[in-house]
Order: sequence, then C-alpha cells, then structure tokens
Amino acid sequence: MYKTVTASDLEFLRVAASPDRVLTGTEISEDYSHDELAGVKHMPEVLVKVASTEEVSAIMRYANEHRIPVVVRGSGTGLVGAAVAIYGGIMLETTGMNQILELDEDNLTVAVQPGVLLIDLAAYAEKNNFLYPPDPGEKSATIGGNISTNAGGMRAVKYGVTRDFVRALTVVLPSGDVVKLGGKVVKNSSGYSLLHLMVGSEGTLGVITEATLKLLPLPEVSISMLVPFQTIRAAIEAVPAIIKSQASLTAIEFFERETVLFAEDYLGKKFPDTSYPAYLLLTVDGNDRSGVEAELFRVADLCMAQGAPDAFLVDTDERKESVWKARGAFLEAIKASTTEMDEADVVVPRDKVAEFIIYTHEIARQLKLRIPSFGHAGDGNLHVYVCRDNLDEENWRSLLAEAFRLMYDRAAQLCGLVSGEHGIGYVKKPYLLASLDAAQIELMRGIKKVFDPNDILNPGKLF
Amino acid sequence: MYKTVTASDLEFLRVAASPDRVLTGTEISEDYSHDELAGVKHMPEVLVKVASTEEVSAIMRYANEHRIPVVVRGSGTGLVGAAVAIYGGIMLETTGMNQILELDEDNLTVAVQPGVLLIDLAAYAEKNNFLYPPDPGEKSATIGGNISTNAGGMRAVKYGVTRDFVRALTVVLPSGDVVKLGGKVVKNSSGYSLLHLMVGSEGTLGVITEATLKLLPLPEVSISMLVPFQTIRAAIEAVPAIIKSQASLTAIEFFERETVLFAEDYLGKKFPDTSYPAYLLLTVDGNDRSGVEAELFRVADLCMAQGAPDAFLVDTDERKESVWKARGAFLEAIKASTTEMDEADVVVPRDKVAEFIIYTHEIARQLKLRIPSFGHAGDGNLHVYVCRDNLDEENWRSLLAEAFRLMYDRAAQLCGLVSGEHGIGYVKKPYLLASLDAAQIELMRGIKKVFDPNDILNPGKLF
Repeated sequence: MYKTVTASDLEFLRVAASPDRVLTGTEISEDYSHDELAGVKHMPEVLVKVASTEEVSAIMRYANEHRIPVVVRGSGTGLVGAAVAIYGGIMLETTGMNQILELDEDNLTVAVQPGVLLIDLAAYAEKNNFLYPPDPGEKSATIGGNISTNAGGMRAVKYGVTRDFVRALTVVLPSGDVVKLGGKVVKNSSGYSLLHLMVGSEGTLGVITEATLKLLPLPEVSISMLVPFQTIRAAIEAVPAIIKSQASLTAIEFFERETVLFAEDYLGKKFPDTSYPAYLLLTVDGNDRSGVEAELFRVADLCMAQGAPDAFLVDTDERKESVWKARGAFLEAIKASTTEMDEADVVVPRDKVAEFIIYTHEIARQLKLRIPSFGHAGDGNLHVYVCRDNLDEENWRSLLAEAFRLMYDRAAQLCGLVSGEHGIGYVKKPYLLASLDAAQIELMRGIKKVFDPNDILNPGKLF
Repeated sequence: MYKTVTASDLEFLRVAASPDRVLTGTEISEDYSHDELAGVKHMPEVLVKVASTEEVSAIMRYANEHRIPVVVRGSGTGLVGAAVAIYGGIMLETTGMNQILELDEDNLTVAVQPGVLLIDLAAYAEKNNFLYPPDPGEKSATIGGNISTNAGGMRAVKYGVTRDFVRALTVVLPSGDVVKLGGKVVKNSSGYSLLHLMVGSEGTLGVITEATLKLLPLPEVSISMLVPFQTIRAAIEAVPAIIKSQASLTAIEFFERETVLFAEDYLGKKFPDTSYPAYLLLTVDGNDRSGVEAELFRVADLCMAQGAPDAFLVDTDERKESVWKARGAFLEAIKASTTEMDEADVVVPRDKVAEFIIYTHEIARQLKLRIPSFGHAGDGNLHVYVCRDNLDEENWRSLLAEAFRLMYDRAAQLCGLVSGEHGIGYVKKPYLLASLDAAQIELMRGIKKVFDPNDILNPGKLF
C-alpha cells in the first residue's frame, strides 16, 4: 500500500531539510516508537527534525507524490498513539520549531511555531502580563499537539478549551500546499471554518507550522482552595450545586486521597492535607482581591453545606506550588504505581460526573481491577486509569477491554463522548466508531479524503 | 439541472408536513423572495413552514432523491442573500419551530428549536438569571440564522461569538439522515468537529433543527458609557490604547453623529447627546457595582487622555433604552436615509479599524458616494454602507462595484477577512473567491460535496 523509504528518498530529505536533521536506523531513539502511554509501538523509517514551513511543504509534496506515510510528532506526550508511525514512513518532529514569533499587544495575540512548549508559552505570556488560559496538566506538550487534540485543561470551566484560543493557523496540506486559515480577527463568517476543522484533527488533515493564539489580560489575583470531603461522591455531588449557584470559578478539580499519596511518593513532596478520602481543588481569579476572596468564601460555605468538614486556602506560594505540582503529577504518579495502565478520557455532562465515577468504582470491584481517577469536575472531563498491576498479559488484555467497554457504554448512556481532550489516536478508534452513528463517520471519512486523497498523513488514526 | 416542483411533489410535501403549512404561487408573500438587504430576488416554488426534525428529514430525503433544490429561511434578516431561493425549489421556513425545549441549570445549557428569535432567547435567559452573550444588533433574527452565520454582535469583545456558545446541534443532512453533533459537554476531542463546520456554513451543509447553547450566569451589573470625540479617527484610535490597558470591557462600539441623527429620525426619539462628530459606546459588566464603576472611570480617564472632551454614564433605564435602541436601529436608519444600499461587513485586526474607516471616507470622496459606517471597534468588525441616493442604475452598479473592490482589497492588505458575521451568501461570493487561495476554496468545495453530493441544499451560495 505504501512505499518503503529508500536511499533516494533519504537523499531528497537531506537536501529538503539538512543532513544533520535527518535520522535513520539506530540514530532514532526508541522513544520515537511510542508516546507517553498508548500500548502501540512502531518505529518510523526516517525521522526529520523540521525547521520551517517551506521544509514541511517540500517534504509533504514529495511524500504525497511517492505515497510515503508521514506522521507529525511534537514532544510525544500523547496518550492514545496519535503520533506513532504505525505504517513506518517519515516522522516530522516539530520541537525544533520552538520560536515565539510575535506578541501583538494591540490585538491580544501571540504567534508561535508549533513546537513551543505549553510551559514556555504560559511563562512568556505571564512575563508580559497576559494569560494563555488553556492549562492541561501536561506542561511539556507542544502547542501544536495541544491544538491537534483540542486540549482543555483545568481552567476550561471559566475560559474554555484550546479551540477557543486559536485565531489563525498556517497549515501544510498533504499536497504540500500551504494555507493560512483564520486571522488575527475576532469574528469570522467567511466560508467554512477550516480553522476549526484543523483543531482536534490529530495530525490527520494537515501539518500545523504556525499558530496565532488569543491571549487575555493576566488576572491580578488567582487564589485556590482545597476542600476535603468524606467520600468522593460527596465531593463530586457538591459541584452541580456550586455551578448552579452561579459561582465564577476558574477551575474545579477532584481527586482521591490515594492519588495524592501516589503524587507525594512520586514527587517526594508533602501535600498540605491527606487526612480525608476525597478533595475538590477550586480556583477563583480576578482583578480585585477582596472580590476573589469573597467568592471563595461563598463557595466554601456552599461546600460546607454539602458536607465538607473543612476548607484550606491555598494562598502562600509554598502551598500553591505543593498543590499544583501534585495535581500536575497525578498521571505520572499513577503510572509509577503500576506496571502498565491505560486511560479513559471520557467527558460527560457536568451533573453526571459523580454517577460515572461511582460506576468506575463498581467496575473495579466487579472486575477486581484497580481504577484510580481524577479530573475536571467543573467541565465533566474525567481521567480514569485502568491499572495492570500483577495481571498476566491475557487477563490484562481481556479485563482492560471489558472495563473500557463498560465505561464507554455508560458514558454514551449519560450523553457523554469518548474523549474530552486526549483524542482518539490509534487506540481509541473502536470506541469512537461505536459511539458515533454511521452518517457522522462517513462525513469524517469524506473530509479526510478531501484533504488527503492518498491517505498519506497519519494514516490509520481516528477511524 | 434541477427538477421543477410538480403536483406530485406538492402532494408529497402536504403529506410529509401538513397541507396548511405548504404554500405555493400567490399564497407565498413576496417577502420570501428576498432578505433584508441583498439585491438578489427569487421566489421559491413552494414554501413549507416546517414543524419538526422528522418532517425536515422526510423532505430532504425526497428532495435529494428528486434533485429539487432546498433553501432554509429563518426570519429573513440576512444581508447577503444566503436565504434566497435563487434556483426556486423548496423553501423550508423555520419560524414555527420556536420552542425553548430545556433549561439545564446544572450544565448551564439551553436547548432550543432553530426558529426561536434572539430577542426571545435573550429575554428567557435573563428571566432565569442567565446571560446568552451573543448580541447582534438584529434581535429578530432566529437562532438558526445566528448559528448559520456565526453571528457576533456587540459583546464579542468579552464573550466571543455565537460559535463559542454552540454546544450541540441536531442536523438533518441533505440525504435526510439526522445527526447529533457535540453534546452538553464542555470539552470534546472525539473526531473532526462537524459541529464547528456547521457553524457559519450558511445553510449549505445541513438543516439545523435543534441547538443546545451555553449560558453564563447573569452579571449583576452592566453599565455603559458614551464617550464623544472630535473626530472619528480620534474615537477609533483610542480603542487600541483601551485594549492595551487590559481594560475588561464587554462592548466597544463606534459610530458617527450622522448615523445617530438618522436613528433619531428613524425612531422619533432623542439620543442623550449629538453635539460631537463621533462616539464610542463602552460597556462593562460584572457582579460588583463598585468594581464595574471603577473600571468605567479608569477607561473614561484613558479616553480623556486620548482627547475625549467628555464622558456620559448611561446608567438610568431611560438613557440605556435610548442609547441601545438607537444602536440597534442603525442599519434600519441608514437604510431609511437612502434609496438603496449595500454593505461591507469586513473584519480587520483591532488596531487597523481606524485606518480602514478613514480609507472608506477617502473612497467616499473619490467616488462621490455617501458611505456611512458604524461597528464593533472592540473586535474589528465594521459595518460599512454604500448608499445609492440619487444615482441611476448604471452609475450605481459601477460605483458600488468599485467601492467594494477598493474596500475588500484594503481589508485583505490589513490581514482582514470578507465577513465578520453577516456571511458570504450569494452577493459576496466574488469577494470570498478573491480573498482565499485556490487550495482553501478547493477544500471547501470538497467538503460541500461530501455533505451534499447532489448540490441540492442552498445551491449557488458561498463559492
């Protein structure tokens, strides 16, 4: 089906890029065969560390003519195998394209190359008194990757997801053509939104080589509060009451003590409190300290009325660091607690989160599996981890499949979706196919064909 | 190319809908041959006042099989001919589907039928202590129409555009298949966003028969301020300074005295002040009156520093009504001031608004045309009206074409786009084609073909 990469192809790539950025065979680290989590592994035949839009364009044009599959990879923090070269071929790695190109203070936009890391963009924005609101736990992901999965993160409750902050993209199409989608403009009603089609397309429609992102003025104050609960159900069930009260919260995270203990172990750092079974972590931001504090106190009262025995302000730099560092390490910490794991990134309506999490506990009991979870209670996006622990391969495969089947079925019953922010990639394909009706899948396949008639860009992903 | 509607087709429609909702010949008001502004006119062969998703599905399936063109129309407030039945055929009118179906206070969503009017949705939300932020001037537009053009409105500075508030859509495809796109969920990374492809697609990809929209808690305070300036340039050039100061404004509108005088005439109502050549109208909202006022005073000081001679608080109900009613009537008022007009709805980066508006004044002088304008200075979306006044047909056509050519060329130079919120429809097609590269147009055409291989849904629009 696809052409194997030959010596003459390598010759072309070395001219199109530069010889030191074209790697083959044992020059390619084993890391490039997989992502952060997904079980699927495959090495690309050649790795090109790309440096410019022009370079990507020349390579795509060549690959398209010669029917060589191409996969784009950022920093490889994905969880569903979207950036794994399952058909070999060419891997374009973007982390060398890591320049922040322009800060436009009149239009509140920043233009970046796709390989800029989220942590670097966030710091750059803050240094210039702006906020880049999307805040996924994985700070070493690239912006290109965040756009490709429509990453959400913790501040989505107030600010929305990555999609809401993408103003313009430069995209190299599979044909090699370069298109500029969107603009610095705030409004747009000029034809179909190819821009929004690119967001969340997981590297299957085009290669993002530049992005113009919307910034917000940096809120002057941002304070968090840690609220313990006696059960995870009580913690999560407090959330609809908080939302209904029209509280203006930036983030509402939930987690269980077990996860915090893993994070303490993993980081070698103490968390402010681990004496309760479950926690909500809430943030309010704004420009007026007294207003922010008043809102937090009002929410604390609400939580107490819902059974919370206490509430801890996270207002010192030290507490802030210990709490948010732990929160950022949950995935890694759970991963370190087991031999292997896989994740469900379901999203359900906000008032169904408790029901879903309690159901995962039932599955854990029923299948004798350990299934820790944490997530974004404020926006219904849950990260649920099925842990292998001591299971043998056969049992692990069958129990994992059964747990996933049960979870995705229940998510569908609750009007949820397969993925909130981690995407479908390779390993979640069956669940996407099962969750969407045939007409939608047909439309998506049709769109893929319009962009990539030879199916050379990230083939075998999504559906 | 298309089949003419015959007696047997009418028979089918009368059974699929109901006889009293299927109109033909002189039963169809001339109003259905055009929209609010566009010069293009054509009567549909049959008008069906649809009542349900099932009805629309049956009609689309039939029309697709028989190659009869179908156009969807809301309340006909469009400005670019998108809802004109230029090939005749069937017009589906949605204003009978005007039910608000569900308010979900746990998930902050409201589900509506497509024919609900913006004014009714806004009032319903407010009555229930919620805000539906999109706020286009034309309040009698349907929500289906707002979604189809990705309408923006005045509060886009703070809250974003219609797209940002669409969570889910029920869509009847040209094939008659019904798909449910998105969900009540906040995050979504589950395949290509067909939802966002539908938003702004101007009735060419599918028929929206239900929408689930995001609401926000209603801010407790919303205060506006009218700031006069000695020139329109001074008014608009103050805006980047305001935005750069990181002021948290909900709306930043600009207009000239002439437009206000037209509105006074049109409404028969006095505006608070008409003694200056140009104005900014600013709004701040929030939950804390003192904070909102402090922000307004800070912005007033900034405007004074930029040369504003005064600032009027719009804080009484009477002032509020007179100001916002006038603002809402600008289009109608300008229309009433001339014999015929056409509009450019360009959007440019916020810091280019002054340059663009001054250029329209130059064009007016050069071509001896009257070109009044107003618009959303805070988001770069301008509404510029070329007035025919006493010109004869030939001169009008040629001068209008020349004025548009000059304006769209300049917008493109300033990295702007053809339409911010009114869409492309029929009459702006040449400008969209001229402004996008061939590769983008090819992709859009390909997408249209995937959704509508027989080109029966709103043919001849967009490109």
